[in-house]
Amino acid sequence: MHNNNKFTPISEIGENKLIERISKKFINKQDSTILGVGDDSAIFKHSAANQTVISTDMLVEGVHFDLMYTPLKHLGYKAIIVNVSDVCAMNSSPKQVLVSLAIPNKYSVEMIEEIYEGVFSACVNYNIDLIGGDTTANAGGLVISVTILGDSPKKRLVKRSGANANDLIVVTGNLGGAYLGLQILEREKMIFTDNTNIQPELGVHSYVLQRQLKPEARIDIINQLSGLNIVPSSMIDISDGLSIDLQHVCKKSNLGFKIFEDKIPIAPESKKTAQELSLDPTICALHGGEDYELLFTVPTETHSKIESIKECSIIGHMASNIKTKELITVSGSSVNLEKEGWDSFVKSNI
Amino acid sequence: MHNNNKFTPISEIGENKLIERISKKFINKQDSTILGVGDDSAIFKHSAANQTVISTDMLVEGVHFDLMYTPLKHLGYKAIIVNVSDVCAMNSSPKQVLVSLAIPNKYSVEMIEEIYEGVFSACVNYNIDLIGGDTTANAGGLVISVTILGDSPKKRLVKRSGANANDLIVVTGNLGGAYLGLQILEREKMIFTDNTNIQPELGVHSYVLQRQLKPEARIDIINQLSGLNIVPSSMIDISDGLSIDLQHVCKKSNLGFKIFEDKIPIAPESKKTAQELSLDPTICALHGGEDYELLFTVPTETHSKIESIKECSIIGHMASNIKTKELITVSGSSVNLEKEGWDSFVKSNI
Repeated sequence: MHNNNKFTPISEIGENKLIERISKKFINKQDSTILGVGDDSAIFKHSAANQTVISTDMLVEGVHFDLMYTPLKHLGYKAIIVNVSDVCAMNSSPKQVLVSLAIPNKYSVEMIEEIYEGVFSACVNYNIDLIGGDTTANAGGLVISVTILGDSPKKRLVKRSGANANDLIVVTGNLGGAYLGLQILEREKMIFTDNTNIQPELGVHSYVLQRQLKPEARIDIINQLSGLNIVPSSMIDISDGLSIDLQHVCKKSNLGFKIFEDKIPIAPESKKTAQELSLDPTICALHGGEDYELLFTVPTETHSKIESIKECSIIGHMASNIKTKELITVSGSSVNLEKEGWDSFVKSNI
Repeated sequence: MHNNNKFTPISEIGENKLIERISKKFINKQDSTILGVGDDSAIFKHSAANQTVISTDMLVEGVHFDLMYTPLKHLGYKAIIVNVSDVCAMNSSPKQVLVSLAIPNKYSVEMIEEIYEGVFSACVNYNIDLIGGDTTANAGGLVISVTILGDSPKKRLVKRSGANANDLIVVTGNLGGAYLGLQILEREKMIFTDNTNIQPELGVHSYVLQRQLKPEARIDIINQLSGLNIVPSSMIDISDGLSIDLQHVCKKSNLGFKIFEDKIPIAPESKKTAQELSLDPTICALHGGEDYELLFTVPTETHSKIESIKECSIIGHMASNIKTKELITVSGSSVNLEKEGWDSFVKSNI
């Protein structure tokens, strides 16, 4: 714990002093930040050649996170990352964030500082300025609302729409890990709730736990795509799961897809954890969310360039018929991911 | 109530359909809005000649509003207005908003639509595009987080800092009404809680109730200042109360102030309600918040121009010594608003 477990009630210092204490270590570095925290609004000016992207996400205690196993610092970090991921999903670069907190009465100044240590860490790692926000009391649980700004030249921005038939479907990193990490945390929570003398054994699952508790956004891939002069035809981040997020792209692009089970990237650590939990790793990859990897489509002629990016996997291609939502399993059978979903996939793999 | 008291559980239609239903009636009108709701981020591009202002506010049930007497439509309206007011406080014009909701489980689709009817109303009245947001479940009360964007030429933007000694202190509209409206609502709530057969008598207090439940932001004043070619030296919106907000300006401008009780604008309806509640109307104007009027400073030479604006009152002037925080009462005595605060003011007026 932070600050030798000191507990300073927020009421002791007041909201203004709290904001002063928190914002002190944040130093604005972006040229486009003109005025940060401390007035009625912040001011920025992105390059005249660029367009600005803006996204906002709300994280709610008990819905998006469980403080029984989520360190506050990790929570602050993740709150920024999920927003950075939304900017990356437009093929853009994050520049500024605003962070608002609704704070339960039992929280101390030190606990809020823990959250902002995570926010600070993410801002440093992704080169983002904290330029505003709001703090308020709350009778319910902790609520974090983050708004993020990014900018890019118009011709580099990528939407969910825009994919063409036969375009390659690419995913970054590997999938299913964050979902499996969550299952481990939930299992350990149950064991701990049943017997509070047992200390959770989390070390062997460190990879999937990190995927859940401290995800990263794929700005590295955005930069590599830029370096290779590739502008994807469509893009989304995988926050709800490969299957549903791919279907978002298809709906917006008015196309279908065909993907191959053996091409879906799954980390060895995720496979091992899935096995231990008697879960099918492909199902975790298809339907588990929160990996914050990118899913994008590119023309077939970029094939070799894409293969040169270490963390990119081509998992299939777009289909001209919007009703084609096909997964070809390892055993060679075809599953319609929209119609049949989980259950039928499980059956076809038995 | 809306839709003949229909109650459709949100789970029946899901988040995606809910967002579709809500966003259908919002049509983007600003040239600077490039992409609205429906992708990972929204996209906008403000004029290359302008700078962008951004502000965010979080409204929490039980802290900022009480649903026992706040109609959901009014709440949606007010959530936008408090943000518009922050943009006005920079002497700027609102252009786009993002609205996020953490929704209690008991809420129906129709209740969410009520909130968005208020949001829609405010967007129409203030010519703002709704370009994004987030909706999520919440085990606690309703939380609304709004982020607003505005833009203006750099030379028109006004901060809290920038006031000069002897600058005139100007407030718009009248003060104390919103606070008095809240007192009436709280009184009626207590009466109603004690005896649920009594219907509240709110009609005679309609002016102060409107100030509390359906405030407006002073974009009209921003436009008039622009028309008169006046750029204030500093500006803030009065959300916490005249006394504390004026002190924010002083702190940022490194100056003091001298204001005159008889110059503080108070509506006749507010005076009447204050009398009924045995409250001092000046204290309500000084320390009651949520009026969302503007407080700004201008050089003395603009005196006659400012007097030509119907809804502007010159209440005093800035002082060179930061320790001067002086209110001259009607009876001629001097009160230090920082040191002595409420109590001493009451004593000096007895």
